[in-house]
Amino acid sequence: MSPTATGPAGADPQQPFEVSAAELLLVLQQALGGPQTVQLEGDGARRLCAIEPLDRAGPQAISFLANPRYRSQLLTSRAGAVLLAPAAREALPAGCTGLITPDPYHAFARLTQWWAARTRPAAVPGVHPSAVLDPTARLGAGVSIGPLAVVEAGAEIGDGAVIGAQCHIGRNARIGARTRLAPQVVVGFDCVVGADGLLHSGVVIGADGFGLAPTKQGYVKIEQLGAVRIGDAVEIGANTCIDRGALGDTVIGHGVKLDNLIQIAHNVQLGEHTAMAGCSAIAGSTVVGARCTIGGGAGVLGHLRIADEVHVSAQSTVSRSLDTPGQYTGFFPLDDNRSWEKNAVTLRQLHRLRERVRALEARLGEPASDSSPTVPATLTAPSAAPDAS
Amino acid sequence: MSPTATGPAGADPQQPFEVSAAELLLVLQQALGGPQTVQLEGDGARRLCAIEPLDRAGPQAISFLANPRYRSQLLTSRAGAVLLAPAAREALPAGCTGLITPDPYHAFARLTQWWAARTRPAAVPGVHPSAVLDPTARLGAGVSIGPLAVVEAGAEIGDGAVIGAQCHIGRNARIGARTRLAPQVVVGFDCVVGADGLLHSGVVIGADGFGLAPTKQGYVKIEQLGAVRIGDAVEIGANTCIDRGALGDTVIGHGVKLDNLIQIAHNVQLGEHTAMAGCSAIAGSTVVGARCTIGGGAGVLGHLRIADEVHVSAQSTVSRSLDTPGQYTGFFPLDDNRSWEKNAVTLRQLHRLRERVRALEARLGEPASDSSPTVPATLTAPSAAPDAS
Amino acid sequence: MSPTATGPAGADPQQPFEVSAAELLLVLQQALGGPQTVQLEGDGARRLCAIEPLDRAGPQAISFLANPRYRSQLLTSRAGAVLLAPAAREALPAGCTGLITPDPYHAFARLTQWWAARTRPAAVPGVHPSAVLDPTARLGAGVSIGPLAVVEAGAEIGDGAVIGAQCHIGRNARIGARTRLAPQVVVGFDCVVGADGLLHSGVVIGADGFGLAPTKQGYVKIEQLGAVRIGDAVEIGANTCIDRGALGDTVIGHGVKLDNLIQIAHNVQLGEHTAMAGCSAIAGSTVVGARCTIGGGAGVLGHLRIADEVHVSAQSTVSRSLDTPGQYTGFFPLDDNRSWEKNAVTLRQLHRLRERVRALEARLGEPASDSSPTVPATLTAPSAAPDAS
Repeated sequence: MSPTATGPAGADPQQPFEVSAAELLLVLQQALGGPQTVQLEGDGARRLCAIEPLDRAGPQAISFLANPRYRSQLLTSRAGAVLLAPAAREALPAGCTGLITPDPYHAFARLTQWWAARTRPAAVPGVHPSAVLDPTARLGAGVSIGPLAVVEAGAEIGDGAVIGAQCHIGRNARIGARTRLAPQVVVGFDCVVGADGLLHSGVVIGADGFGLAPTKQGYVKIEQLGAVRIGDAVEIGANTCIDRGALGDTVIGHGVKLDNLIQIAHNVQLGEHTAMAGCSAIAGSTVVGARCTIGGGAGVLGHLRIADEVHVSAQSTVSRSLDTPGQYTGFFPLDDNRSWEKNAVTLRQLHRLRERVRALEARLGEPASDSSPTVPATLTAPSAAPDAS
Repeated sequence: MSPTATGPAGADPQQPFEVSAAELLLVLQQALGGPQTVQLEGDGARRLCAIEPLDRAGPQAISFLANPRYRSQLLTSRAGAVLLAPAAREALPAGCTGLITPDPYHAFARLTQWWAARTRPAAVPGVHPSAVLDPTARLGAGVSIGPLAVVEAGAEIGDGAVIGAQCHIGRNARIGARTRLAPQVVVGFDCVVGADGLLHSGVVIGADGFGLAPTKQGYVKIEQLGAVRIGDAVEIGANTCIDRGALGDTVIGHGVKLDNLIQIAHNVQLGEHTAMAGCSAIAGSTVVGARCTIGGGAGVLGHLRIADEVHVSAQSTVSRSLDTPGQYTGFFPLDDNRSWEKNAVTLRQLHRLRERVRALEARLGEPASDSSPTVPATLTAPSAAPDAS
Repeated sequence: MSPTATGPAGADPQQPFEVSAAELLLVLQQALGGPQTVQLEGDGARRLCAIEPLDRAGPQAISFLANPRYRSQLLTSRAGAVLLAPAAREALPAGCTGLITPDPYHAFARLTQWWAARTRPAAVPGVHPSAVLDPTARLGAGVSIGPLAVVEAGAEIGDGAVIGAQCHIGRNARIGARTRLAPQVVVGFDCVVGADGLLHSGVVIGADGFGLAPTKQGYVKIEQLGAVRIGDAVEIGANTCIDRGALGDTVIGHGVKLDNLIQIAHNVQLGEHTAMAGCSAIAGSTVVGARCTIGGGAGVLGHLRIADEVHVSAQSTVSRSLDTPGQYTGFFPLDDNRSWEKNAVTLRQLHRLRERVRALEARLGEPASDSSPTVPATLTAPSAAPDAS
């Protein structure tokens, strides 16, 4: 069950796909590490032809219960089979086949991979005659190059990699084994993508970082002399951009997962297994640790250091380095427009309001309960100016 | 006056285009539903060769007054003709031809459509010889396929549809009648776009949703087994992304209008005639009602339900379900940097400030005027973790 | 040292590149305006084969010290040569060659340009046989058209311009002399890009602005009849979008620098030498002055006027016109999640808190220290509705 999800030759999407619960038991045991990882409860002969959520699943569908919050949905589900944890076993409806496993969400993920490999046509190895390959490009065994793709001089495509239609692989770029590029991905010159990756359409790897020297005559471009290095098993969502470094490379660790429309600026380093949701951004030279999560729309300013296992909530702005793991948040709470207006106008006088409270306290002889009003360095305004590295 | 705005064969953009006010009267009456919809006041023989805003229009241009706020501009306008409401009739300058209609903005929109159809060259039906079409792709009557486009096996292109240069239409995807794709649009396998749509360059329909199961060894991909279904008369702006569903489809209702650089995550549902401005985003599985507007840069978190006719202001974050129509806002008000610093630092002690006020009130024997400081569920931090559906 | 950074014929990226400090002295003197602009201190024979940051540079690398904050790095640097200001001269380590110049950052920028021109292969003039050119397209001298590019009827490509692989140049569009387009850029019909520009992959110039007239039957499209006009020496980052105007053009001034994933809406005007960082956005019809900086993720609402030399901090929202130069900020300060929750919930009662403070003041006979609680017009909610111009 490779993450590339390319199916056996001959998978036919028109042909309805069907499998028994007992067959799935074997598939999941193999994927998860042995017979002890999954147990069957109920009818192993049950035929299944779809994966569906609990509340929509019919008798020919397999579903899953990962979050105990949805346990009530299990009680009334019409699903033919369900992946569930041992603790939820007693909620299994009569006549529903259970596949009992400690981490049903992980099992579900493996199931979708196996399913996709059997229901989606695999990329066909070979070079489409309309593709434009420089004669010095090197292709590994079983590579697939789609129609109208361009592979420039010196580029290397690893064994089993899939270069989608209309992709552009720049000069001396390297794509790792089994990595798949959807149509219309751009990988710039000298950039390196690891093995077992997945890049979605519109991804741009290796555009110039935003480096400019201000002068009296306007900005002077700082040529970006680095590249981008991406580890193994990295997934990058549609229209996401990762810029090349100014001096040295922008580096994306193994197992990083990026959603759509993300901006990774020059010389950023993302630690292994960090995940970023859609429309988030990391400004130049910031180093993000391993196993972090960055919520959708969140922004991390430049030249910061973020520790391992930091979790940034959606729509929040990180304007200082964070050296302690934990969850961090900072967005204005939504309100009806009229309430927001009233609170927002008051917010612009908040510092003054605190001084008024302090004056009242002093008047009443309260002990000084207020900490210093000094602005900490962590709140100083981020520079909006583009920088070099 | 079809929304596809393709012109008559032979439209020549080099040739100056000119029309009389009386001819436009007929055009608009036909577009808006009959002779009663528009009346002419003044010289019907007035020749017009441009559409321009009131403050820039010259005597050969037609303009419009939709917002009463700009009425003073009408008084001094040099426009040759103006679309205006009956209430503004008396402000019509001497010598300016009036086209009186209850909704001048709507009439203006129809006028631009008619104008574009006459001044812009139409796409030429036929398949450009450089396009790569799978022999099993099915093309309707009058379809135009641009240079270097790719249409994969089993795809269906409806009558009169336009597939721009370098587009990619995935396996078994369907494009509705008269829908137009600008150059370099990607529509993924199995995805469906309705009739009379318009997709701008860089749009990516059907990239994988961001579904990952966390394990000790890193994230395991959840294959996204659904597709994207888009209704009729939908416009989608440049570089906007709509991801395919995890289980089941992502669904975009009829008449939805999306601006540029928008992110629609997997299994989102957008109700009919909802409009979203640039750089906004909807996270996974959220259901947005009909006739909503989402302002630019706004973000709606995942797994929420937004009622019909909810209007979210620009740059605001929706972190809870909204079951009441209305306008909602939440962004930090701009200030000069020094004031912001002082207020922001105080904001981080706001809860403490309230406690100090309460203490003062208690000291003075004020009745308890404070509601509970309990954090409501609606403000709990959104998870930054990617999810499955 | 042209900004196009195309190198001499025969530059070979496989060949290690090496230069002496004395040669670089001459190069920089020529670039910066004469012998008085740069002085050499130390060994001019020093061989250099890389540009590296101070803390990573080895004895064969040249580095730079622009920000006095990093002076301590100079003291311990192993760099073979360093660009530095006269004031930092005494910190030059023994054995390190100094290139003394008043603005080392500017000198560094020029150095990177010269370096790139010598280490990166130049685009080869000529039209790749796989490109699709309309016979009426006009190409200047020395133009390079990459593989699978499309140039439509009436388009004009200036002398020495580079159209990257798989680009699309629309009908009657014009690209200025020496401007370079990376692969997969789209320039729409009638749009104009000036000379000496650089457009990165995924850029979309001239998609339709978001113009819609609301009616009871849904939105009616306002055809966008204008185009986009871009000045000289403009750089545009990956996947950035600049929409065409509704009536009249969207206008980008000379020397403007845009980072990745930026949205410029219809009829915006950006003044000369304004720079915008990644993921920022300007809504429709807003006029931004010259020499402004807009931080990453910041948003400027529509129909506003921003003066010259306004600096907007990252992640801030500009909801009113700004007629005074200066730095402006407005984002919610990050906090640990629990503190944020407590402060955010209190923020939704802030107006009420102020009233409570006022009541306490009145009770104690304090003079009225509070300004009016009236909501200023500058805080009224921005409309989320799309508009025409």
